[in-house]
Amino acid sequence: MSANVLTAAELAARLRQSPFNVWMDLRVIELNEQFIEIGLTWRPDMANARRDVAHGGIVGALIDTAADYAIAAKLGRAVPTVDLRIDYHLPARMGELRARARVVRLGGTLAVAEAEAFDSDGRMVASGRGTYFTAEPKG
Amino acid sequence: MSANVLTAAELAARLRQSPFNVWMDLRVIELNEQFIEIGLTWRPDMANARRDVAHGGIVGALIDTAADYAIAAKLGRAVPTVDLRIDYHLPARMGELRARARVVRLGGTLAVAEAEAFDSDGRMVASGRGTYFTAEPKG
Amino acid sequence: MSANVLTAAELAARLRQSPFNVWMDLRVIELNEQFIEIGLTWRPDMANARRDVAHGGIVGALIDTAADYAIAAKLGRAVPTVDLRIDYHLPARMGELRARARVVRLGGTLAVAEAEAFDSDGRMVASGRGTYFTAEPKG
Amino acid sequence: MSANVLTAAELAARLRQSPFNVWMDLRVIELNEQFIEIGLTWRPDMANARRDVAHGGIVGALIDTAADYAIAAKLGRAVPTVDLRIDYHLPARMGELRARARVVRLGGTLAVAEAEAFDSDGRMVASGRGTYFTAEPKG
Repeated sequence: MSANVLTAAELAARLRQSPFNVWMDLRVIELNEQFIEIGLTWRPDMANARRDVAHGGIVGALIDTAADYAIAAKLGRAVPTVDLRIDYHLPARMGELRARARVVRLGGTLAVAEAEAFDSDGRMVASGRGTYFTAEPKG
Repeated sequence: MSANVLTAAELAARLRQSPFNVWMDLRVIELNEQFIEIGLTWRPDMANARRDVAHGGIVGALIDTAADYAIAAKLGRAVPTVDLRIDYHLPARMGELRARARVVRLGGTLAVAEAEAFDSDGRMVASGRGTYFTAEPKG
Repeated sequence: MSANVLTAAELAARLRQSPFNVWMDLRVIELNEQFIEIGLTWRPDMANARRDVAHGGIVGALIDTAADYAIAAKLGRAVPTVDLRIDYHLPARMGELRARARVVRLGGTLAVAEAEAFDSDGRMVASGRGTYFTAEPKG
Repeated sequence: MSANVLTAAELAARLRQSPFNVWMDLRVIELNEQFIEIGLTWRPDMANARRDVAHGGIVGALIDTAADYAIAAKLGRAVPTVDLRIDYHLPARMGELRARARVVRLGGTLAVAEAEAFDSDGRMVASGRGTYFTAEPKG
């Protein structure tokens, strides 16, 4: 696998160019050559109908973003999601959520990355993988 | 396939028990025996880094919720998502987004539903399907 | 959606260029502008450990091939599978199996198609969807 | 994660109860507490239309079976596949193919396992994950 070409600070700056990422208050927690960790702090406005559980859309966005940024660290830019699979294992209760992501396969047109999301007790609440479009945008 | 046991108004009330659904301002647009349509109005705080495109997490949450509520209409309650696949076809630009969902298979333990999301020009921006847990929650 | 550019006979000839398709004895049952149906006759050497049920790999290959050929009918050639999701609904018992597939989204680089597989009693035993690579192969 | 309750020899015997697994000549290559490896030797009758490349259905069946047997090692029995995602990375050319699988989440009703498939040059040709039904079959 190729080496990282962006630092955690550079990825964090890029991450926060998205207003919805800012709303979720996504943060880069750790970056090394093997994985990236992206986290958020669960807020009541992120809840599903059970008010003590995060909405699946929040958990899915965290998984997708972490997998995307595992690729961004290698390529120097975030990439469009082609498709995404999320597995929900446990309700994500109040507290910190963090997703650890790694690149499975980095190709010139498509890449695959996967991520696992954990709550503040270290329980895996969700996991997943996505295909991302890595070809240079036309232009 | 079994008949609907909830009305659009009942599903809308249930939908809005989730604070994140309220934040997205999800609405039940149409309900019949074949499908349900759930919609939202794109806001700037839902954008990704390209400020004119909705974040994939918003589109994914819309697809997941529509598929879930296609099942809820038949069962009388929303059900936990086991896993979800989202395919992103086109950037979802400013305006209305709506997802039309139908039940593929309704079983006593698991169900599958699928959804297609369209922008206000009628272009399909995303589609997907999920597996949902339909067994009665343990008392 | 664009019109078909291959006939059922042309697709059937192409299908049988693959030795494993010949082993499965895959046949084009129907082709029109909306969908393609591809079928096989269940044989004992296709069984899983329950000798009266087809192996999931056979059902998955049928779903994948049907979805691929829905695209092939429009493009004039079969295309590589990028990724695939299969949902297994019911055991596929002895008899005929047929998968009906349609194109969800046909793009210049990627396409999405979905399929539903039925047994000879008309029960849906599996369904799924895949992403396929539609860009011209490099010369 | 719970300990293995079956040996490699016991899993191999169970594997070969399926006629299609016998046709593919699937073998248990390695089993430890972290992963299982299941392999096959590519034969011409497993080819797709490019006669030097394995059919995706064969690779998918290998991934599915490896993920299933990673769970079987922990539970003492193979389990039905609920749904499956396969990512195809590279053409699987002539030679040995092996899939290494591990359990991601083992629950009382559902489990998730993932697998990566490699050719004899150690290139990852495909990867994927599935949801499996782990509840006891009804008597």
